[in-house]
Amino acid sequence: MHRFFVDSAPAERAFLTGEQARQIATVLRLKPGERIVLVADLVDHEVELQAVAPAQVTGKVVARRPVATELPFRLTLAVPVLKADRSEEIVEATSQLGVSRFVPFTSTRSVVRELSPAKRERWQKIAREAAETAHRGAIPRVDELVTWGALFVHLDGRVVICWEEATGPRLPEASGNGDVSLVVGPEGGLSAEEIAAARSHDAAIASLGTRILRAETAAIAAVAMLVGARGG
Amino acid sequence: MHRFFVDSAPAERAFLTGEQARQIATVLRLKPGERIVLVADLVDHEVELQAVAPAQVTGKVVARRPVATELPFRLTLAVPVLKADRSEEIVEATSQLGVSRFVPFTSTRSVVRELSPAKRERWQKIAREAAETAHRGAIPRVDELVTWGALFVHLDGRVVICWEEATGPRLPEASGNGDVSLVVGPEGGLSAEEIAAARSHDAAIASLGTRILRAETAAIAAVAMLVGARGG
Repeated sequence: MHRFFVDSAPAERAFLTGEQARQIATVLRLKPGERIVLVADLVDHEVELQAVAPAQVTGKVVARRPVATELPFRLTLAVPVLKADRSEEIVEATSQLGVSRFVPFTSTRSVVRELSPAKRERWQKIAREAAETAHRGAIPRVDELVTWGALFVHLDGRVVICWEEATGPRLPEASGNGDVSLVVGPEGGLSAEEIAAARSHDAAIASLGTRILRAETAAIAAVAMLVGARGG
Repeated sequence: MHRFFVDSAPAERAFLTGEQARQIATVLRLKPGERIVLVADLVDHEVELQAVAPAQVTGKVVARRPVATELPFRLTLAVPVLKADRSEEIVEATSQLGVSRFVPFTSTRSVVRELSPAKRERWQKIAREAAETAHRGAIPRVDELVTWGALFVHLDGRVVICWEEATGPRLPEASGNGDVSLVVGPEGGLSAEEIAAARSHDAAIASLGTRILRAETAAIAAVAMLVGARGG
């Protein structure tokens, strides 16, 4: 069944308009009697379609189920703005894996130094669609771009910087048991000064292994290692 | 320092020809006196360049170090042939993460059903270059394409199928302690019959979590979860 995030939970009947109605009527070409799932407030609402038109779709809620696919902790990922579509690759893959919030950032060695409103909106769209196809119960949020200096006030839970020169613990061990914010560096890596600044904000510095990973591989691997170790 | 895999370990002096000499002389424009690393038989050979020309590069071996970046177990990944460049994304990311061998396969729901010799050579080139940039000590090997029915005789160690409908253990727990072969399905997933056939070959069926992952995310996440849990 196709899944759609909606802003508020439907009561007995469901009404969809705009892009979602258009998609159901003209792209997916669903018919009355077929079912979709509307996701709101961590509940799946199974809806049997009654009337389908490009301007409005109506249906009847036939079942409600709590969503069981959200991680049992909040996972924030600080994403460097990378060249080409590499940041979008990170957002797509890690939205599937359960990230709840993205904080785009630039640091001294960043090659790309801005994130236009249109580009940020694109990240948000990718996050939403990836969460829908992953059968998640919540849409990951994409924050405003920040610099390294301002990054740490935007992160919550245990902050872990994944750094290729880390000599300390490996990622799963460094993350504690509660909410986590993971940080990976841009193409050129993070400088020793940036790592020192992170330490002064009580961030842990962790290793992803002995091999050198590209920025996007590091981000996806870090999230997967944490999710694999924590479960959920 | 730039790293190059070579077929045999250099003794006192090193000679490079062909593509590697051309790259050093005309792409990287390295000069006599600069150093590169030649990797053979799990040993890094640090070489000081003596003469640099597009047809031949010569140098002197000034240091040898055992490579410390290979995983402490053999990790084989069975890769479904996917649409567009999605299999290549898997090969690139997981070569960085430490996979030692790739086995391309097709199964009943595969959309793409062949892997041309040129395409397989491309996978091999991507694996080699990703291993070089990851500072690995060995080049991952890309096997010939096989079908699901023939896949299991090509895999060794503990075989673990990552399946979104798995009710059993999660991936890190299902993999034992020795060599591992991981398998993920193509875009359309694996069928119940294919899973039954895998079980008859003593494969374990494991979960990567409660969310539905795209094929390429599943492959990269599976390798990362295993490497994160095992260390190395």
